[in-house]
Amino acid sequence: MKKNQLVKWMSQKQVTIPALLLEHYTELGLNEHELMALLHIQSFINEGDEFLTPMQLSERMTLTHEECTKLLSKLIRSQLLSLEKKSDETGILYEAYSLEPLWIRFIELLDQKEHQTSQHESSELEG
Amino acid sequence: MKKNQLVKWMSQKQVTIPALLLEHYTELGLNEHELMALLHIQSFINEGDEFLTPMQLSERMTLTHEECTKLLSKLIRSQLLSLEKKSDETGILYEAYSLEPLWIRFIELLDQKEHQTSQHESSELEG
Amino acid sequence: MKKNQLVKWMSQKQVTIPALLLEHYTELGLNEHELMALLHIQSFINEGDEFLTPMQLSERMTLTHEECTKLLSKLIRSQLLSLEKKSDETGILYEAYSLEPLWIRFIELLDQKEHQTSQHESSELEG
Amino acid sequence: MKKNQLVKWMSQKQVTIPALLLEHYTELGLNEHELMALLHIQSFINEGDEFLTPMQLSERMTLTHEECTKLLSKLIRSQLLSLEKKSDETGILYEAYSLEPLWIRFIELLDQKEHQTSQHESSELEG
Repeated sequence: MKKNQLVKWMSQKQVTIPALLLEHYTELGLNEHELMALLHIQSFINEGDEFLTPMQLSERMTLTHEECTKLLSKLIRSQLLSLEKKSDETGILYEAYSLEPLWIRFIELLDQKEHQTSQHESSELEG
Repeated sequence: MKKNQLVKWMSQKQVTIPALLLEHYTELGLNEHELMALLHIQSFINEGDEFLTPMQLSERMTLTHEECTKLLSKLIRSQLLSLEKKSDETGILYEAYSLEPLWIRFIELLDQKEHQTSQHESSELEG
Repeated sequence: MKKNQLVKWMSQKQVTIPALLLEHYTELGLNEHELMALLHIQSFINEGDEFLTPMQLSERMTLTHEECTKLLSKLIRSQLLSLEKKSDETGILYEAYSLEPLWIRFIELLDQKEHQTSQHESSELEG
Repeated sequence: MKKNQLVKWMSQKQVTIPALLLEHYTELGLNEHELMALLHIQSFINEGDEFLTPMQLSERMTLTHEECTKLLSKLIRSQLLSLEKKSDETGILYEAYSLEPLWIRFIELLDQKEHQTSQHESSELEG
């Protein structure tokens, strides 16, 4: 590997996934294609691109253009992703993906699991 | 969300993926199930568990036990994952997964792409 | 850089810092030496070593052994770090650092800032 | 912690430091203030801001405006940071910090360490 390529490697960004999400994504109803799509969107957002087309997603995944269109629709419908209208400083409107719905749903899941654990523990103590 | 749960969230580990890998995994012949499996293995290694069974992998993925067995075999056969015998300080043998083959293959891919780019550039200059 | 060294680089762990902590650590009373010490401790914990001596810390920092001893004491006294007694599966006692106190203090700080912002906003609305 | 604040926490970016850099920064001649300054710059770059003033740096650190000016000059002089002129798509010139010099210096250090290790090993074999 040449030096300039190595520097490119060393100065690249890292996309981070919380270990808890990796452990529990299937409980949110996500499959591997959907989680990977969310990571690609996160990676685009990190680079300052808040929007990507199904075509751009398809170029990075093993899915076709049509499959990516369906997948994005399903994620929005399932409230794990949102597509919002924003305007930049010059007033120009643009669309922006946000992963906030994912985090809201994930908080609810963790809350629910915590609740079940404490109920289970108190019923054990009572029993 | 309760405070103790929030602290658990804040002190959790993050699993990191190099942005370049996210961009080029399909060129390594990886699909989304396989890349996610590698991330799960990375996450286990981060936690100090260098080995996981197909059953443990299956519990975190949308795949069955059998599908995970096949997937792990394929990754090893494709030289993107290795399973090595190691011995701990007391001499007890154990098996350990390593993602080193993935990184070696990825270096080769990046080298090849760099080579193609420079050839393309020099043929453009010559043409 | 040789290939085996490059693989070592690519397969190394990343230590992650929440961007919000990087933005607000001085408001927690932390200076740069103290935050770096916490990152070194985090890095050791990531590697499975929950304890490190002032000497080990000193080898990685620009501080002397004595300065590291003082710094660790101050962090514990300020409730930004804790040193707990734990026992392993064979019952052997060992000491383990934990960054949980840091996260608890940080939650309190963020709560306080949120509270001040909403008070400020409501007094603006009333005024 | 309120839900909207928690979502803000969960969707925040993580700044990543290679574990090897954390282990060897003092060998690059960096002290803790300087490494933290580089992390702040990295964090700004991640957010799309390739430039920050000594004042902005000072607001996040325990250092004064003047100390930050000196620190940034020293980093550039020591070839661990560069400040380049760039132009945006409309042709407007701006200044941008880059951490590439740090990575180049770090590759050299790792190469040198590897070289010393192999020399040491071969002299042991010969001796």
